[in-house]
Amino acid sequence: MSLRKYSDRPILEEDLKIVLEGAMRAPTAGNMMLYSIIVVKDKEKKEILSRTCDDQPFIANAPVVLIFLADMQRWFDYYDYSGVKEFCNEKGIEYNSPDEGDLMLAAADAVIAAQNAVIAGEALNIGSCYIGDIVENYEVHRDLLKLPKWVFPVAMLCMGYYPEEQKRIISPRFDSEYIVFNEEYRRLTNEDFKDMFIEREKRLSPDNKLGAKNLGQFMYARKTGSEFSKEMTRSVREMLKNWRGDDI
Amino acid sequence: MSLRKYSDRPILEEDLKIVLEGAMRAPTAGNMMLYSIIVVKDKEKKEILSRTCDDQPFIANAPVVLIFLADMQRWFDYYDYSGVKEFCNEKGIEYNSPDEGDLMLAAADAVIAAQNAVIAGEALNIGSCYIGDIVENYEVHRDLLKLPKWVFPVAMLCMGYYPEEQKRIISPRFDSEYIVFNEEYRRLTNEDFKDMFIEREKRLSPDNKLGAKNLGQFMYARKTGSEFSKEMTRSVREMLKNWRGDDI
Repeated sequence: MSLRKYSDRPILEEDLKIVLEGAMRAPTAGNMMLYSIIVVKDKEKKEILSRTCDDQPFIANAPVVLIFLADMQRWFDYYDYSGVKEFCNEKGIEYNSPDEGDLMLAAADAVIAAQNAVIAGEALNIGSCYIGDIVENYEVHRDLLKLPKWVFPVAMLCMGYYPEEQKRIISPRFDSEYIVFNEEYRRLTNEDFKDMFIEREKRLSPDNKLGAKNLGQFMYARKTGSEFSKEMTRSVREMLKNWRGDDI
Repeated sequence: MSLRKYSDRPILEEDLKIVLEGAMRAPTAGNMMLYSIIVVKDKEKKEILSRTCDDQPFIANAPVVLIFLADMQRWFDYYDYSGVKEFCNEKGIEYNSPDEGDLMLAAADAVIAAQNAVIAGEALNIGSCYIGDIVENYEVHRDLLKLPKWVFPVAMLCMGYYPEEQKRIISPRFDSEYIVFNEEYRRLTNEDFKDMFIEREKRLSPDNKLGAKNLGQFMYARKTGSEFSKEMTRSVREMLKNWRGDDI
Protein backbone atom coordinates (compact mmCIF):
# COMPACT_ATOMS: atom_id res chain seq x y z
CA MET A 1 0.00 0.00 0.00
CA SER A 2 1.00 3.62 -0.35
CA LEU A 3 1.12 5.57 2.91
CA ARG A 4 0.16 9.25 2.75
CA LYS A 5 -0.28 9.96 6.44
CA TYR A 6 2.72 9.50 8.68
CA SER A 7 3.44 9.31 12.36
CA ASP A 8 4.92 12.56 13.65
CA ARG A 9 7.99 10.70 14.86
CA PRO A 10 11.05 11.57 12.79
CA ILE A 11 12.70 8.57 11.17
CA LEU A 12 15.54 7.28 13.34
CA GLU A 13 18.94 7.76 11.74
CA GLU A 14 19.68 4.06 12.17
CA ASP A 15 16.46 3.15 10.35
CA LEU A 16 17.12 5.60 7.54
CA LYS A 17 20.57 4.13 7.19
CA ILE A 18 19.09 0.65 6.75
CA VAL A 19 16.65 1.96 4.14
CA LEU A 20 19.46 3.61 2.19
CA GLU A 21 21.71 0.59 2.49
CA GLY A 22 18.82 -1.55 1.27
CA ALA A 23 18.47 0.75 -1.73
CA MET A 24 22.16 0.56 -2.47
CA ARG A 25 22.15 -3.26 -2.33
CA ALA A 26 19.68 -3.33 -5.23
CA PRO A 27 20.85 -4.87 -8.49
CA THR A 28 22.49 -2.30 -10.73
CA ALA A 29 23.57 -2.52 -14.37
CA GLY A 30 27.22 -3.55 -14.58
CA ASN A 31 27.58 -2.69 -10.87
CA MET A 32 27.79 0.94 -12.04
CA MET A 33 25.16 2.41 -9.67
CA LEU A 34 23.77 4.73 -12.33
CA TYR A 35 21.74 6.65 -9.76
CA SER A 36 21.99 9.02 -6.85
CA ILE A 37 19.67 9.55 -3.93
CA ILE A 38 18.92 12.94 -2.40
CA VAL A 39 17.63 12.82 1.16
CA VAL A 40 15.34 15.76 1.87
CA LYS A 41 14.36 16.61 5.43
CA ASP A 42 14.35 20.40 5.21
CA LYS A 43 10.84 21.63 5.94
CA GLU A 44 10.92 24.47 3.44
CA LYS A 45 12.22 22.25 0.66
CA LYS A 46 9.49 19.70 1.33
CA GLU A 47 6.90 22.51 1.23
CA ILE A 48 8.17 23.54 -2.19
CA LEU A 49 8.12 19.95 -3.44
CA SER A 50 4.57 19.52 -2.16
CA ARG A 51 3.55 22.37 -4.46
CA THR A 52 5.71 21.54 -7.49
CA CYS A 53 4.65 17.89 -7.44
CA ASP A 54 1.04 18.49 -8.42
CA ASP A 55 0.03 20.21 -5.16
CA GLN A 56 -0.03 17.31 -2.74
CA PRO A 57 0.21 18.84 0.76
CA PHE A 58 0.94 15.49 2.47
CA ILE A 59 4.40 15.55 0.90
CA ALA A 60 5.40 18.36 3.26
CA ASN A 61 4.36 16.22 6.23
CA ALA A 62 6.54 13.26 5.36
CA PRO A 63 9.49 13.15 7.79
CA VAL A 64 11.82 12.11 4.97
CA VAL A 65 11.61 12.51 1.23
CA LEU A 66 13.97 10.52 -0.98
CA ILE A 67 14.59 11.59 -4.55
CA PHE A 68 16.03 8.98 -6.89
CA LEU A 69 18.00 10.36 -9.78
CA ALA A 70 19.06 8.57 -12.93
CA ASP A 71 22.65 9.78 -12.84
CA MET A 72 25.12 9.69 -15.71
CA GLN A 73 26.72 12.92 -14.52
CA ARG A 74 28.93 11.13 -12.01
CA TRP A 75 30.24 8.73 -14.64
CA PHE A 76 30.86 11.44 -17.20
CA ASP A 77 32.63 13.57 -14.60
CA TYR A 78 34.70 10.49 -13.83
CA TYR A 79 35.35 9.90 -17.52
CA ASP A 80 36.53 13.49 -17.72
CA TYR A 81 38.81 12.94 -14.72
CA SER A 82 40.11 9.76 -16.39
CA GLY A 83 41.04 11.40 -19.68
CA VAL A 84 38.53 9.30 -21.62
CA LYS A 85 38.24 11.85 -24.41
CA GLU A 86 41.94 11.64 -25.18
CA PHE A 87 41.85 7.86 -24.86
CA CYS A 88 38.93 7.68 -27.32
CA ASN A 89 40.74 9.92 -29.80
CA GLU A 90 43.78 7.71 -29.61
CA LYS A 91 41.81 4.46 -30.02
CA GLY A 92 39.32 5.71 -32.62
CA ILE A 93 36.32 5.31 -30.29
CA GLU A 94 33.46 7.83 -30.55
CA TYR A 95 33.05 9.86 -27.39
CA ASN A 96 29.43 10.94 -26.94
CA SER A 97 27.48 12.47 -24.09
CA PRO A 98 24.74 10.43 -22.37
CA ASP A 99 21.85 9.48 -24.61
CA GLU A 100 18.36 8.02 -24.46
CA GLY A 101 19.73 4.48 -24.03
CA ASP A 102 21.81 5.55 -21.03
CA LEU A 103 18.78 7.29 -19.61
CA MET A 104 16.58 4.18 -19.81
CA LEU A 105 19.26 2.08 -18.16
CA ALA A 106 19.96 4.63 -15.43
CA ALA A 107 16.25 5.25 -14.83
CA ALA A 108 15.72 1.50 -14.33
CA ASP A 109 18.68 1.43 -11.93
CA ALA A 110 17.21 4.30 -9.93
CA VAL A 111 13.74 2.78 -9.68
CA ILE A 112 15.09 -0.66 -8.72
CA ALA A 113 16.96 1.04 -5.87
CA ALA A 114 13.83 2.99 -4.91
CA GLN A 115 11.72 -0.14 -4.62
CA ASN A 116 14.37 -1.76 -2.44
CA ALA A 117 14.09 1.29 -0.18
CA VAL A 118 10.33 0.78 -0.03
CA ILE A 119 10.69 -2.87 0.96
CA ALA A 120 13.41 -2.17 3.51
CA GLY A 121 11.18 0.54 4.96
CA GLU A 122 8.22 -1.79 5.34
CA ALA A 123 10.35 -4.11 7.44
CA LEU A 124 10.96 -1.18 9.81
CA ASN A 125 7.33 -0.03 10.01
CA ILE A 126 8.13 2.79 7.62
CA GLY A 127 5.48 3.36 4.99
CA SER A 128 6.05 5.22 1.75
CA CYS A 129 4.38 6.75 -1.25
CA TYR A 130 5.85 7.23 -4.72
CA ILE A 131 5.42 10.66 -6.24
CA GLY A 132 5.68 10.29 -10.01
CA ASP A 133 5.14 14.05 -10.26
CA ILE A 134 8.81 14.60 -9.48
CA VAL A 135 9.38 14.51 -13.26
CA GLU A 136 7.28 17.68 -13.55
CA ASN A 137 8.62 21.23 -13.24
CA TYR A 138 12.11 20.24 -14.27
CA GLU A 139 13.52 23.77 -14.19
CA VAL A 140 12.31 24.36 -10.61
CA HIS A 141 13.61 21.01 -9.37
CA ARG A 142 16.91 21.48 -11.17
CA ASP A 143 17.50 24.75 -9.35
CA LEU A 144 16.09 23.57 -6.02
CA LEU A 145 18.19 20.39 -5.91
CA LYS A 146 21.17 21.71 -7.86
CA LEU A 147 20.83 19.04 -10.51
CA PRO A 148 23.52 19.05 -13.17
CA LYS A 149 22.71 18.32 -16.79
CA TRP A 150 22.95 14.53 -16.88
CA VAL A 151 20.86 13.81 -13.87
CA PHE A 152 17.17 13.03 -14.29
CA PRO A 153 14.83 12.73 -11.29
CA VAL A 154 12.75 9.62 -11.94
CA ALA A 155 11.14 8.77 -8.63
CA MET A 156 10.40 10.38 -5.31
CA LEU A 157 9.41 8.59 -2.13
CA CYS A 158 7.72 10.14 0.87
CA MET A 159 8.54 8.11 3.94
CA GLY A 160 7.51 7.98 7.55
CA TYR A 161 6.50 5.55 10.26
CA TYR A 162 2.98 4.19 10.10
CA PRO A 163 0.70 6.11 12.45
CA GLU A 164 -0.49 3.91 15.31
CA GLU A 165 -4.13 3.90 14.31
CA GLN A 166 -3.31 3.22 10.65
CA LYS A 167 -5.19 0.35 9.06
CA ARG A 168 -3.26 -1.26 6.25
CA ILE A 169 -5.72 -1.27 3.39
CA ILE A 170 -4.79 -3.34 0.37
CA SER A 171 -6.02 -1.73 -2.85
CA PRO A 172 -7.48 -4.25 -5.25
CA ARG A 173 -5.43 -4.85 -8.39
CA PHE A 174 -6.61 -5.96 -11.80
CA ASP A 175 -6.82 -9.70 -12.24
CA SER A 176 -3.54 -11.23 -13.39
CA GLU A 177 -5.10 -12.53 -16.64
CA TYR A 178 -5.11 -8.94 -17.89
CA ILE A 179 -1.57 -8.15 -16.79
CA VAL A 180 0.47 -11.35 -17.09
CA PHE A 181 0.72 -13.01 -20.48
CA ASN A 182 2.36 -16.22 -21.61
CA GLU A 183 5.09 -16.12 -24.23
CA GLU A 184 3.75 -13.05 -26.04
CA TYR A 185 1.68 -9.93 -25.60
CA ARG A 186 -2.05 -10.35 -25.63
CA ARG A 187 -4.08 -7.41 -26.82
CA LEU A 188 -7.22 -7.23 -24.69
CA THR A 189 -10.66 -7.44 -26.27
CA ASN A 190 -13.79 -5.43 -25.46
CA GLU A 191 -15.05 -8.49 -23.60
CA ASP A 192 -11.88 -8.40 -21.48
CA PHE A 193 -12.31 -4.72 -20.70
CA LYS A 194 -15.89 -5.26 -19.63
CA ASP A 195 -14.79 -7.87 -17.08
CA MET A 196 -11.56 -6.19 -16.09
CA PHE A 197 -13.22 -2.95 -15.03
CA ILE A 198 -16.46 -4.34 -13.66
CA GLU A 199 -15.62 -3.56 -10.02
CA ARG A 200 -14.05 -0.19 -10.68
CA GLU A 201 -16.94 0.82 -12.94
CA LYS A 202 -19.31 0.32 -10.00
CA ARG A 203 -17.47 2.88 -7.95
CA LEU A 204 -17.82 5.65 -10.58
CA SER A 205 -20.47 8.13 -9.55
CA PRO A 206 -22.99 8.73 -12.38
CA ASP A 207 -22.94 12.45 -11.55
CA ASN A 208 -19.14 12.78 -11.40
CA LYS A 209 -17.86 16.31 -11.88
CA LEU A 210 -16.04 15.43 -15.08
CA GLY A 211 -19.26 14.43 -16.83
CA ALA A 212 -17.73 11.06 -17.72
CA LYS A 213 -20.23 8.43 -18.76
CA ASN A 214 -17.89 5.57 -17.94
CA LEU A 215 -14.64 4.83 -16.18
CA GLY A 216 -12.49 5.08 -19.32
CA GLN A 217 -13.65 8.63 -19.91
CA PHE A 218 -13.20 9.44 -16.24
CA MET A 219 -9.66 8.05 -16.11
CA TYR A 220 -8.57 9.80 -19.28
CA ALA A 221 -9.86 13.17 -18.06
CA ARG A 222 -8.53 12.59 -14.54
CA LYS A 223 -5.16 11.05 -15.38
CA THR A 224 -3.82 10.56 -18.91
CA GLY A 225 -5.28 13.75 -20.39
CA SER A 226 -5.08 15.90 -17.25
CA GLU A 227 -3.15 19.08 -16.61
CA PHE A 228 -0.51 17.32 -14.49
CA SER A 229 0.06 14.86 -17.29
CA LYS A 230 0.59 17.72 -19.75
CA GLU A 231 3.11 19.31 -17.41
CA MET A 232 4.82 15.94 -17.01
CA THR A 233 5.24 15.70 -20.76
CA ARG A 234 6.51 19.24 -21.16
CA SER A 235 8.99 18.74 -18.35
CA VAL A 236 10.18 15.33 -19.54
CA ARG A 237 10.69 16.74 -23.04
CA GLU A 238 12.76 19.57 -21.56
CA MET A 239 14.90 17.05 -19.64
CA LEU A 240 15.26 14.81 -22.68
CA LYS A 241 17.03 17.63 -24.51
CA ASN A 242 20.05 16.87 -22.33
CA TRP A 243 20.07 13.19 -23.36
CA ARG A 244 20.79 13.21 -27.06
CA GLY A 245 24.22 11.66 -27.13
CA ASP A 246 25.95 14.66 -28.66
CA ASP A 247 29.54 14.50 -29.75
CA ILE A 248 31.67 15.88 -26.92
CA MET B 1 23.30 -10.41 -6.01
CA SER B 2 22.52 -11.29 -9.61
CA LEU B 3 22.25 -15.00 -10.33
CA ARG B 4 23.39 -16.15 -13.77
CA LYS B 5 23.60 -19.90 -13.14
CA TYR B 6 20.42 -21.67 -12.17
CA SER B 7 19.43 -25.03 -10.79
CA ASP B 8 18.03 -27.28 -13.52
CA ARG B 9 14.77 -27.61 -11.60
CA PRO B 10 11.95 -25.79 -13.33
CA ILE B 11 10.26 -23.16 -11.20
CA LEU B 12 7.20 -24.60 -9.45
CA GLU B 13 3.97 -23.08 -10.70
CA GLU B 14 3.00 -22.19 -7.13
CA ASP B 15 6.29 -20.34 -6.66
CA LEU B 16 5.97 -18.51 -9.97
CA LYS B 17 2.48 -17.49 -8.96
CA ILE B 18 3.82 -15.97 -5.73
CA VAL B 19 6.52 -14.11 -7.66
CA LEU B 20 3.95 -12.70 -10.09
CA GLU B 21 1.51 -11.82 -7.32
CA GLY B 22 4.37 -10.09 -5.51
CA ALA B 23 5.07 -8.10 -8.67
CA MET B 24 1.43 -7.14 -9.01
CA ARG B 25 1.24 -5.97 -5.38
CA ALA B 26 3.90 -3.35 -6.11
CA PRO B 27 2.92 0.30 -5.85
CA THR B 28 1.58 1.60 -9.14
CA ALA B 29 0.75 5.15 -10.27
CA GLY B 30 -2.92 5.89 -9.64
CA ASN B 31 -3.50 2.13 -9.19
CA MET B 32 -3.43 1.98 -13.01
CA MET B 33 -0.92 -0.87 -13.42
CA LEU B 34 0.79 0.75 -16.37
CA TYR B 35 2.71 -2.42 -17.15
CA SER B 36 2.37 -5.95 -18.42
CA ILE B 37 4.50 -8.99 -17.75
CA ILE B 38 5.31 -11.62 -20.35
CA VAL B 39 6.32 -15.00 -18.93
CA VAL B 40 8.69 -16.77 -21.29
CA LYS B 41 9.46 -20.47 -20.79
CA ASP B 42 9.67 -21.56 -24.42
CA LYS B 43 13.17 -22.84 -25.08
CA GLU B 44 13.43 -21.46 -28.60
CA LYS B 45 12.22 -18.01 -27.55
CA LYS B 46 14.76 -17.94 -24.74
CA GLU B 47 17.48 -18.93 -27.21
CA ILE B 48 16.53 -16.01 -29.43
CA LEU B 49 16.49 -13.61 -26.48
CA SER B 50 19.89 -14.85 -25.39
CA ARG B 51 21.24 -13.73 -28.77
CA THR B 52 19.27 -10.50 -29.18
CA CYS B 53 20.12 -9.36 -25.66
CA ASP B 54 23.82 -8.83 -26.26
CA ASP B 55 24.69 -12.51 -26.71
CA GLN B 56 24.43 -13.79 -23.17
CA PRO B 57 24.00 -17.57 -23.42
CA PHE B 58 22.98 -17.99 -19.76
CA ILE B 59 19.64 -16.37 -20.60
CA ALA B 60 18.61 -19.49 -22.51
CA ASN B 61 19.33 -21.61 -19.42
CA ALA B 62 17.06 -19.67 -17.10
CA PRO B 63 13.94 -21.73 -16.40
CA VAL B 64 11.78 -18.62 -16.56
CA VAL B 65 12.29 -15.26 -18.18
CA LEU B 66 10.00 -12.39 -17.24
CA ILE B 67 9.71 -9.37 -19.51
CA PHE B 68 8.31 -6.21 -17.95
CA LEU B 69 6.63 -3.86 -20.38
CA ALA B 70 5.71 -0.25 -19.85
CA ASP B 71 2.20 -0.56 -21.21
CA MET B 72 -0.06 2.29 -22.28
CA GLN B 73 -1.57 0.15 -25.02
CA ARG B 74 -4.03 -1.48 -22.66
CA TRP B 75 -5.28 1.88 -21.40
CA PHE B 76 -5.57 3.38 -24.86
CA ASP B 77 -7.42 0.31 -26.10
CA TYR B 78 -9.68 0.74 -23.10
CA TYR B 79 -10.10 4.44 -23.86
CA ASP B 80 -11.07 3.46 -27.37
CA TYR B 81 -13.59 0.95 -26.01
CA SER B 82 -14.92 3.68 -23.69
CA GLY B 83 -15.52 6.25 -26.42
CA VAL B 84 -12.99 8.65 -24.92
CA LYS B 85 -12.35 10.37 -28.24
CA GLU B 86 -15.99 11.36 -28.58
CA PHE B 87 -16.11 12.35 -24.92
CA CYS B 88 -13.05 14.57 -25.37
CA ASN B 89 -14.54 16.24 -28.45
CA GLU B 90 -17.68 16.96 -26.52
CA LYS B 91 -15.87 18.36 -23.49
CA GLY B 92 -13.15 20.22 -25.36
CA ILE B 93 -10.35 18.04 -23.96
CA GLU B 94 -7.35 17.28 -26.20
CA TYR B 95 -7.05 13.58 -27.00
CA ASN B 96 -3.45 12.59 -27.59
CA SER B 97 -1.64 9.30 -27.93
CA PRO B 98 0.86 8.24 -25.22
CA ASP B 99 3.84 10.51 -24.87
CA GLU B 100 7.22 10.72 -23.18
CA GLY B 101 5.65 11.59 -19.83
CA ASP B 102 3.42 8.52 -19.96
CA LEU B 103 6.43 6.44 -20.88
CA MET B 104 8.47 7.58 -17.88
CA LEU B 105 5.57 6.89 -15.53
CA ALA B 106 4.80 3.50 -17.05
CA ALA B 107 8.47 2.53 -17.15
CA ALA B 108 8.77 3.31 -13.44
CA ASP B 109 5.65 1.25 -12.76
CA ALA B 110 7.10 -1.68 -14.68
CA VAL B 111 10.47 -1.57 -12.91
CA ILE B 112 8.89 -1.22 -9.46
CA ALA B 113 6.90 -4.38 -10.22
CA ALA B 114 10.04 -6.13 -11.48
CA GLN B 115 11.95 -5.42 -8.30
CA ASN B 116 9.08 -6.78 -6.24
CA ALA B 117 9.35 -9.96 -8.31
CA VAL B 118 13.06 -10.12 -7.50
CA ILE B 119 12.44 -9.77 -3.78
CA ALA B 120 9.56 -12.27 -3.78
CA GLY B 121 11.82 -14.67 -5.68
CA GLU B 122 14.62 -14.37 -3.13
CA ALA B 123 12.22 -15.45 -0.39
CA LEU B 124 11.58 -18.64 -2.39
CA ASN B 125 15.24 -19.42 -3.11
CA ILE B 126 14.78 -18.10 -6.64
CA GLY B 127 17.63 -15.96 -7.87
CA SER B 128 17.41 -13.54 -10.76
CA CYS B 129 19.37 -11.33 -13.08
CA TYR B 130 18.19 -8.17 -14.81
CA ILE B 131 18.90 -7.94 -18.51
CA GLY B 132 18.90 -4.28 -19.47
CA ASP B 133 19.66 -5.35 -23.03
CA ILE B 134 15.96 -6.08 -23.57
CA VAL B 135 15.68 -2.48 -24.81
CA GLU B 136 17.96 -3.41 -27.72
CA ASN B 137 16.79 -4.84 -31.04
CA TYR B 138 13.34 -3.35 -30.72
CA GLU B 139 12.10 -4.57 -34.10
CA VAL B 140 13.07 -8.18 -33.35
CA HIS B 141 11.52 -8.14 -29.89
CA ARG B 142 8.39 -6.43 -31.17
CA ASP B 143 7.83 -9.23 -33.67
CA LEU B 144 8.92 -12.03 -31.34
CA LEU B 145 6.67 -10.93 -28.47
CA LYS B 146 3.91 -9.39 -30.60
CA LEU B 147 4.31 -6.02 -28.96
CA PRO B 148 1.83 -3.39 -30.09
CA LYS B 149 2.86 0.21 -30.57
CA TRP B 150 2.44 1.62 -27.06
CA VAL B 151 4.26 -1.08 -25.20
CA PHE B 152 7.92 -0.61 -24.32
CA PRO B 153 10.02 -3.44 -22.87
CA VAL B 154 11.97 -1.86 -20.00
CA ALA B 155 13.30 -4.76 -17.99
CA MET B 156 13.87 -8.46 -18.32
CA LEU B 157 14.52 -10.88 -15.48
CA CYS B 158 16.07 -14.31 -15.80
CA MET B 159 14.92 -16.45 -12.91
CA GLY B 160 15.67 -19.85 -11.48
CA TYR B 161 16.35 -21.60 -8.21
CA TYR B 162 19.80 -21.17 -6.72
CA PRO B 163 21.99 -24.14 -7.57
CA GLU B 164 22.86 -26.15 -4.46
CA GLU B 165 26.54 -25.38 -4.53
CA GLN B 166 25.97 -21.67 -5.17
CA LYS B 167 27.81 -19.29 -2.90
CA ARG B 168 26.01 -15.99 -2.48
CA ILE B 169 28.67 -13.44 -3.24
CA ILE B 170 27.85 -9.86 -2.39
CA SER B 171 29.41 -7.46 -4.90
CA PRO B 172 30.91 -4.41 -3.25
CA ARG B 173 29.06 -1.16 -3.91
CA PHE B 174 30.44 2.35 -3.94
CA ASP B 175 30.47 4.04 -0.56
CA SER B 176 27.24 5.82 0.24
CA GLU B 177 28.94 9.21 0.48
CA TYR B 178 29.25 9.16 -3.32
CA ILE B 179 25.67 8.04 -3.95
CA VAL B 180 23.50 9.53 -1.20
CA PHE B 181 23.41 13.30 -0.80
CA ASN B 182 21.70 15.54 1.71
CA GLU B 183 19.18 18.11 0.52
CA GLU B 184 20.80 18.69 -2.86
CA TYR B 185 22.99 17.09 -5.50
CA ARG B 186 26.70 17.05 -4.84
CA ARG B 187 28.96 17.06 -7.86
CA LEU B 188 31.95 14.85 -7.07
CA THR B 189 35.47 16.22 -7.15
CA ASN B 190 38.64 14.63 -8.52
CA GLU B 191 39.58 13.87 -4.93
CA ASP B 192 36.28 12.00 -4.52
CA PHE B 193 36.86 9.99 -7.68
CA LYS B 194 40.30 8.98 -6.55
CA ASP B 195 38.89 7.55 -3.32
CA MET B 196 35.69 6.20 -4.79
CA PHE B 197 37.43 4.01 -7.35
CA ILE B 198 40.48 3.04 -5.33
CA GLU B 199 39.43 -0.60 -4.89
CA ARG B 200 38.09 -1.06 -8.40
CA GLU B 201 41.17 0.57 -9.91
CA LYS B 202 43.30 -2.11 -8.25
CA ARG B 203 41.46 -4.84 -10.11
CA LEU B 204 42.16 -3.36 -13.56
CA SER B 205 44.83 -5.30 -15.35
CA PRO B 206 47.58 -2.98 -16.68
CA ASP B 207 47.66 -5.02 -19.90
CA ASN B 208 43.89 -5.08 -20.44
CA LYS B 209 42.84 -5.76 -24.02
CA LEU B 210 41.21 -2.38 -24.41
CA GLY B 211 44.50 -0.57 -23.84
CA ALA B 212 42.87 1.49 -21.08
CA LYS B 213 45.28 3.24 -18.77
CA ASN B 214 42.75 3.58 -15.99
CA LEU B 215 39.34 2.33 -14.95
CA GLY B 216 37.45 5.31 -16.39
CA GLN B 217 38.83 4.58 -19.85
CA PHE B 218 38.15 0.89 -19.41
CA MET B 219 34.55 1.42 -18.31
CA TYR B 220 33.79 3.85 -21.11
CA ALA B 221 35.14 1.48 -23.76
CA ARG B 222 33.53 -1.54 -22.12
CA LYS B 223 30.15 -0.06 -21.21
CA THR B 224 29.06 3.49 -22.07
CA GLY B 225 30.80 3.69 -25.43
CA SER B 226 30.47 0.03 -26.40
CA GLU B 227 28.63 -1.55 -29.31
CA PHE B 228 25.77 -2.81 -27.13
CA SER B 229 25.30 0.69 -25.81
CA LYS B 230 25.10 2.05 -29.37
CA GLU B 231 22.48 -0.56 -30.25
CA MET B 232 20.58 0.31 -27.09
CA THR B 233 20.43 3.93 -28.17
CA ARG B 234 19.39 3.15 -31.72
CA SER B 235 16.68 0.82 -30.49
CA VAL B 236 15.40 3.16 -27.76
CA ARG B 237 15.22 5.99 -30.31
CA GLU B 238 13.21 3.74 -32.61
CA MET B 239 10.81 2.90 -29.77
CA LEU B 240 10.55 6.54 -28.72
CA LYS B 241 9.06 7.40 -32.12
CA ASN B 242 5.86 5.76 -30.89
CA TRP B 243 5.72 7.99 -27.81
CA ARG B 244 5.28 11.48 -29.13
CA GLY B 245 1.78 12.26 -27.94
CA ASP B 246 0.33 12.75 -31.40
CA ASP B 247 -3.16 14.03 -31.90
CA ILE B 248 -5.43 11.01 -32.37
